[in-house]
Amino acid sequence: MNYAIGYKCTLCGCEFDYGMHGEMMTCSHCGEKGILDIVFDYSAIKKHLTRSYLERCRDYSMWRYDALMPLEGESFSEFLRIGWTPLYRSKRLKARLGIKELFIKDDGTNPTASLKDRASGVAVAKAIELGYDTISCSSTGNAASSLAGSAAHAGLRTFIFVPERAPEGKLAQLLIYGANLIAVRGDYGATFELSKAAIDKYGWYNRNAGINPVLTEGKKTVALEIAEQLNFRLTDWVAVSVGDGCTIGSVYNGFREMYELGLADRIPKILGVQSTGCCPFVTAYNSGTELVPTDENTIADSIAVGVPRNPVKAKRAVAGSGGTWISVTDEEILEAMRLLGSTEGVFSEPAASASAAGVCRAIECGVIESDETVTIISTGNGLKDVKNGLRAAGKPLYCEPSLGALEATGIIR
Amino acid sequence: MNYAIGYKCTLCGCEFDYGMHGEMMTCSHCGEKGILDIVFDYSAIKKHLTRSYLERCRDYSMWRYDALMPLEGESFSEFLRIGWTPLYRSKRLKARLGIKELFIKDDGTNPTASLKDRASGVAVAKAIELGYDTISCSSTGNAASSLAGSAAHAGLRTFIFVPERAPEGKLAQLLIYGANLIAVRGDYGATFELSKAAIDKYGWYNRNAGINPVLTEGKKTVALEIAEQLNFRLTDWVAVSVGDGCTIGSVYNGFREMYELGLADRIPKILGVQSTGCCPFVTAYNSGTELVPTDENTIADSIAVGVPRNPVKAKRAVAGSGGTWISVTDEEILEAMRLLGSTEGVFSEPAASASAAGVCRAIECGVIESDETVTIISTGNGLKDVKNGLRAAGKPLYCEPSLGALEATGIIR
Repeated sequence: MNYAIGYKCTLCGCEFDYGMHGEMMTCSHCGEKGILDIVFDYSAIKKHLTRSYLERCRDYSMWRYDALMPLEGESFSEFLRIGWTPLYRSKRLKARLGIKELFIKDDGTNPTASLKDRASGVAVAKAIELGYDTISCSSTGNAASSLAGSAAHAGLRTFIFVPERAPEGKLAQLLIYGANLIAVRGDYGATFELSKAAIDKYGWYNRNAGINPVLTEGKKTVALEIAEQLNFRLTDWVAVSVGDGCTIGSVYNGFREMYELGLADRIPKILGVQSTGCCPFVTAYNSGTELVPTDENTIADSIAVGVPRNPVKAKRAVAGSGGTWISVTDEEILEAMRLLGSTEGVFSEPAASASAAGVCRAIECGVIESDETVTIISTGNGLKDVKNGLRAAGKPLYCEPSLGALEATGIIR
Repeated sequence: MNYAIGYKCTLCGCEFDYGMHGEMMTCSHCGEKGILDIVFDYSAIKKHLTRSYLERCRDYSMWRYDALMPLEGESFSEFLRIGWTPLYRSKRLKARLGIKELFIKDDGTNPTASLKDRASGVAVAKAIELGYDTISCSSTGNAASSLAGSAAHAGLRTFIFVPERAPEGKLAQLLIYGANLIAVRGDYGATFELSKAAIDKYGWYNRNAGINPVLTEGKKTVALEIAEQLNFRLTDWVAVSVGDGCTIGSVYNGFREMYELGLADRIPKILGVQSTGCCPFVTAYNSGTELVPTDENTIADSIAVGVPRNPVKAKRAVAGSGGTWISVTDEEILEAMRLLGSTEGVFSEPAASASAAGVCRAIECGVIESDETVTIISTGNGLKDVKNGLRAAGKPLYCEPSLGALEATGIIR
């Protein structure tokens, strides 16, 4: 059952009936910048998606929330099992930070090891529903690998466009999933334009974030899960790393829906975290100005976005929730990687560790207070970026093979 | 409730009461080679672990089977959420292979991205139960990283011994989890001996596989899950890659228990798969002789074990289930990586892809017939070994940034 009833442009506010205009990508008045919200019939959803429904539901994946997805299908067992990732109640990191309660959502345990699986899963389901056999995107990162994985599992063909400088590890994942992988001799802008031209000409389904409105309806499931895993009593804060703004916008949407459905007790304050090497949202927030294109100088490649494509949804997430923006240095990100790993056993890639670094910084600044509760979203697995893992990790102790030599090192205390 | 009632030596068959001898590691008669089975009171377990219990149980992790673990504890919510990994019903790979039914168990989605989390989780729980604050092992691979992750989450200190040649990626994972990591200037033998000397002297809890009998009680949960996820109607075959023999032995144990508890309809035939570059079990099976130490020439590092430490349990798994042994080349392993990725969206490390390669080979040989059903266990995530992922994956297509150039490549068909 598809409860979507319309689209609403995030720029001009125009509304469009669902289905009347076919499948819409962006606003017909505002063009490509007119990113759409999908509007749902919450009064109908409210009757279906109740606490008792969720208690009975045995589908422990993001597909348990299909009532909140703009999809016609009723069974998603043939897709990758995305979501229902662990939410850990922290003991050691909480004590280290000196706050009342801390939870860590480990989205790096998704099938292709990042939160982006949630968006790609919904995109692939929608592509199949609409009769496409091919789906395409341009990206160097987790969006691309998640799309390639979900599409392979569902039997869709993919064309993935990456800039030629894309790191080898990410190429490996894409190629193993059988993507038609095109390394474009040019920068990301040229790559995006080529993908756009090919998608337009060949009529492939478009999984470019910041264009396709169904993607956010997948990503928001991370918030729906957090709410349910917390038994609908949410933490004061939820911290999330921010690149182009799609994920933070989706996280807010999920919490807002849980609240509007009468399931969650409130909407948490959202802490948007960027790297100081690339923080257009933080700069704009602090100076009270519009976003300005910035350089992309950070190890956190997944959030290194100098010109965010989803500014409206991102700013709405922080403003609407009463949260704030904060930036952290690469050194703080590496320190947060070590902290998450050594105190919680969660290995997060740099962009995913930024949210934890932001929480540390926000506590130091007094933005988060000691009697408050916090959830940190880790968006991707550290195995995605072993090079920076090693930068954070330091070195092993080298030792000759004797007990005497071992004891002389002083490692055993 | 701990239903363990005894130990039984896999070599001499001697039985020991549980608890009467403290916590036993190996047989007091046979020494270090006398690996123990743990004996459970199945008649008592049968009353508790029923289909209706499992239907009601909301713990979707390996801890749902705690009745079959030798642990006193009753709540495991403070440990990493290990297990209940996806079991996919294959469509495309099944069709490619021309068999009746095919399932793929993706254990690479565990918290530290391998099946070994199951063993380390139980070991850490047991260490805490016994009052240890430190746990140690020697390994270069998934056993070490899984131990470091589970121990970090539970607040235990670890000493991990690796040979100095250990690959960087695995060191990164270990260091991020905060392990005391000792890179021993010597080969694996010297590393193992140093770890043994230190464990003996300092009284740390020993998580060396092939010594500690609780490890298999964690690993077997992969079989318990497969049985339940198949609604207790098992496939004709289950394929698993084999290194030192612990995992295959545990898989058999799990299926045997499910059958003895009256839950599963049968014990599947187990296909033990090794690499031709290191296949002591296959050689011994084909020649009808004892195991002979062999070289370790394979890309599948996690199963490159020239002198397996668990021969009895491994041989029992294949013989007891009516299965067989098979070996595959590195080229077949790389081809299986591509197949699993491109047809199922599952990215497996080389050792984990070997099981799929073994199934391909077994079908070619007529060992697995076209009217039979098969489950493949993928034991670890391909992100653990990006270098070999790239070897398997091939190269992207490089292209100038124009639609004309793209079309001239012929990639769009």
